[in-house]
Amino acid sequence: MSSYAGVMESLMNSAEEQQPSSPLANSRSNKQESSESQKPNGVCGFVLVHAGAGYHSESKAKEYKHVCKRACQRVCSLYGCYLQTNNVTFYCLFTQCDSPFTNAGMGSNLNLSGEIECDASIMDGKSLHYGAVGAIRGIKNPVLVANRLLSEAQKGKLSAGRIPPCFLVGRGAHDWAVSHGIPPCPSEKMATKFSLSAYKRNKRKMELAEKMDSGHNQTKKRRQSSENENGSGCLDTVGAVVVDLEGNVAAAVSSGGLAMKHAGRVGQAAHYGCGCWAENARNMNPYSTAVSTSGSPFLASEDRVLGGVIVLRCCRCVENQPSQNIQGILVEFLWSHTTESMCVGYMSAQDSKAKTHISRLPPGTVPGQSLAIEGGVCRLMSVVE
Amino acid sequence: MSSYAGVMESLMNSAEEQQPSSPLANSRSNKQESSESQKPNGVCGFVLVHAGAGYHSESKAKEYKHVCKRACQRVCSLYGCYLQTNNVTFYCLFTQCDSPFTNAGMGSNLNLSGEIECDASIMDGKSLHYGAVGAIRGIKNPVLVANRLLSEAQKGKLSAGRIPPCFLVGRGAHDWAVSHGIPPCPSEKMATKFSLSAYKRNKRKMELAEKMDSGHNQTKKRRQSSENENGSGCLDTVGAVVVDLEGNVAAAVSSGGLAMKHAGRVGQAAHYGCGCWAENARNMNPYSTAVSTSGSPFLASEDRVLGGVIVLRCCRCVENQPSQNIQGILVEFLWSHTTESMCVGYMSAQDSKAKTHISRLPPGTVPGQSLAIEGGVCRLMSVVE
Repeated sequence: MSSYAGVMESLMNSAEEQQPSSPLANSRSNKQESSESQKPNGVCGFVLVHAGAGYHSESKAKEYKHVCKRACQRVCSLYGCYLQTNNVTFYCLFTQCDSPFTNAGMGSNLNLSGEIECDASIMDGKSLHYGAVGAIRGIKNPVLVANRLLSEAQKGKLSAGRIPPCFLVGRGAHDWAVSHGIPPCPSEKMATKFSLSAYKRNKRKMELAEKMDSGHNQTKKRRQSSENENGSGCLDTVGAVVVDLEGNVAAAVSSGGLAMKHAGRVGQAAHYGCGCWAENARNMNPYSTAVSTSGSPFLASEDRVLGGVIVLRCCRCVENQPSQNIQGILVEFLWSHTTESMCVGYMSAQDSKAKTHISRLPPGTVPGQSLAIEGGVCRLMSVVE
Repeated sequence: MSSYAGVMESLMNSAEEQQPSSPLANSRSNKQESSESQKPNGVCGFVLVHAGAGYHSESKAKEYKHVCKRACQRVCSLYGCYLQTNNVTFYCLFTQCDSPFTNAGMGSNLNLSGEIECDASIMDGKSLHYGAVGAIRGIKNPVLVANRLLSEAQKGKLSAGRIPPCFLVGRGAHDWAVSHGIPPCPSEKMATKFSLSAYKRNKRKMELAEKMDSGHNQTKKRRQSSENENGSGCLDTVGAVVVDLEGNVAAAVSSGGLAMKHAGRVGQAAHYGCGCWAENARNMNPYSTAVSTSGSPFLASEDRVLGGVIVLRCCRCVENQPSQNIQGILVEFLWSHTTESMCVGYMSAQDSKAKTHISRLPPGTVPGQSLAIEGGVCRLMSVVE
């Protein structure tokens, strides 16, 4: 089962207008904006975000879509400020993580010990630099740390020729973040009502399953008990891909990981080359590509793979008009998932509002054995002086 | 600069004969061997190990080579026991980690806080399963945990359909290991005289560099100060690739990571697809491939990439002889490095002793700007009934 729509409008749900909100109150980012704001180009050529591949209930559809719309529109409200593409993806995820409806940052799934440990990564297509954190506790927005790791690494080596870290985990990641001015967040503020009640539900389910297992052949039982993970809401990772008017791409992803995972487990959101990828056009390759995933090959079982992906691919196209040179970038984008649903939002610099959509497998198809794929194209124009 | 030797003998240093030592005293592995020893095939068709790409001084050449030889011969002394290929790589690394001359497990580089935190990963080419630990403290042989994660994952899902972890970090990894019967090792026993004195030397060097930096433009200085990391012995990761008589491959790598790294830093040895890779021949691809690295793209700077790799590629070839069917596997193997030197060892099931070699860039060439590549071929034979 697959469907592809060249023209997106028919697929989209109506998106209510929303006032663009003010830039995030983040001292470091504000500083960066003001120092770089002389540059004329707004960065957000086109942005595509996802709020996970999993199961998005009809009753919460509005909230999921709102998260995506808000992320796109916040970014586009910064139009006029010159931001690096990786900072745009960071802004998206920052916004998404703040929602209690996403499994990222605050409100993430709790692990086996009842703690929240998050993964996040970000990649810059121009430098190919990558920053990531894994199993980090007590930081409200893990993508903030991943982005800071990336930007610190771009400054070059540390004293005595030491190579700066690009991937930090656990306590070390937390301490690095705090020493770089990122405020810690007490554990009790990381969990939400929603994540705590899901934890209690999962814990009961687990204890029941283990009670049923005892006395049987454990190994055989373990293979058979493949319940639907979607029910526990364990796949609603968030992610973003972006391209600016110069064709630079970036990608990011942030996740609280699987519900009831073992403490210290790092999921694909932090893995290099797994959670996200961004690569500018260069040499023999005329396309810039950015990808952000939810779920992963690690979730593959004997009979199915659960996950989703958003992809953006673009190339330059130059057109001559009588009065001026218009430089265009042709953007192709898509989302694809094998889970029951996937929530996405997107917006170009030319749009006044973001479009959002919950893609669903057709009724009767089996998650993990069917695939939905949808997408669209967009042309970005800028004047070349 | 590159050289390739189709016939290896000319390249090899003489390897002193050594009595094969008894199998490792590991209760779990012993159990596995005995339960699987009815199967007729010895697994170790061919094994290739490395003791890092970095700088191997002439004065310690004998020790480095001994580490590699011992790893190969221990494995081949198990000939007759049927082990999975991933267990063979595990045995190699287990042996290598025990040496104070390698930056893996006990005796690893100390981090900025004076602690030892290790990375290790292992991949099975048949199942494509992968197990890894990052920034793990207080475990003498981190590859033991990585291998156990891989074998636990191969048993299938946990209770209530939970997906078993394949990558654990920090405290969570340590606790998982201990709860699976892997004994903890006190911090003070992890460090050796050698690693402690290197730490003190590096600390002094760092403090001196920071003193010189203060008062100057930090960012510019940071970019310029690119000292030779080799001097601090920070690249002597260990790794192994192996193929059995049925053409199954596996790969593993273990590293203490960079000297003076930030606590919580995870290096390429634990990254999926970066530290090692193993993939059996399947469908359209007639080749099985296994790779283990030392150093990585993360060590790339503006003008150079420091690292090394061992690669094994093999395919089946069936020959008919009058009296019997001989099934052969043709193995191509190579090592390549941009560092000053790389230490390797290899052995096939048909050999009575392992061969070891320290490959060096030719005098006058610049590490990071030159490349050494050497390798060989080997044919494995077995009778098909």
